[in-house]
Amino acid sequence: MFKKILYPTDFSEVSKKAINYIKKLKEAGTQEVVVLHVLNEKGIEAIALYASGSFDELLQRVEKEAADEMKEIEAVLKESGFKVKLRIEIGIPLTDILKVEEEEGVSAIVIGSHGRSNVKEMLLGSVSEKVIRKSKNPVLVIKR
Amino acid sequence: MFKKILYPTDFSEVSKKAINYIKKLKEAGTQEVVVLHVLNEKGIEAIALYASGSFDELLQRVEKEAADEMKEIEAVLKESGFKVKLRIEIGIPLTDILKVEEEEGVSAIVIGSHGRSNVKEMLLGSVSEKVIRKSKNPVLVIKR
Repeated sequence: MFKKILYPTDFSEVSKKAINYIKKLKEAGTQEVVVLHVLNEKGIEAIALYASGSFDELLQRVEKEAADEMKEIEAVLKESGFKVKLRIEIGIPLTDILKVEEEEGVSAIVIGSHGRSNVKEMLLGSVSEKVIRKSKNPVLVIKR
Repeated sequence: MFKKILYPTDFSEVSKKAINYIKKLKEAGTQEVVVLHVLNEKGIEAIALYASGSFDELLQRVEKEAADEMKEIEAVLKESGFKVKLRIEIGIPLTDILKVEEEEGVSAIVIGSHGRSNVKEMLLGSVSEKVIRKSKNPVLVIKR
């Protein structure tokens, strides 16, 4: 039921809090954690345009930052005895989270209730709310 | 983290599916389950009016039905070794769920993603979505 967990993270505080709950789920049978970070393609395009920079250069930089954050999470989870898979996707957060849920055949999702983009989320609903609505598997939502 | 769980139920199928997940959480430390059913006061008033019946009579009947359902859930959970507390409240589902969360000092909530009133929920969002948004504790959302 909790054997393989998808953990989508945007490296926000509440998202990091979720790691403690994943550790606890080990006792309920969690063996593997797929850590997913989605780089928002449209967002990167917009920033590149605004900063008159190149899309590819900016992408390379945010990918590098994400990879570093992922390595830290991987170390913490491996220390707790989990099998860990890291995935960085470039696209639309909701779409890619649901795609990876399907591809990896996970049994549950653990996610923070809110991401970084607070104001936008207050207006449009959080990515997490949409994941909860659309996912096929149970979702453990961690609150701030 | 999962020591005392609040399990709000409207006795729908997906809500009953949640019981299997609660059983699994036992291994992650769940000891006590507070089973909560909220009788929607406004709904009972409306039906009593429509059916030209008395509010009190109708309330008595739905309370009896709820109590029977609760007894069955209690038996299943006790068999799995949980301490169980049953609560039937008369009021507004969202408000009462959050009130009981506070009163009982639970550490997590396990809830079905959708209740019985599907059409209304498609228009207004489900009670569960509102619970996820307003609760202080992590929420495990079970999908259909």
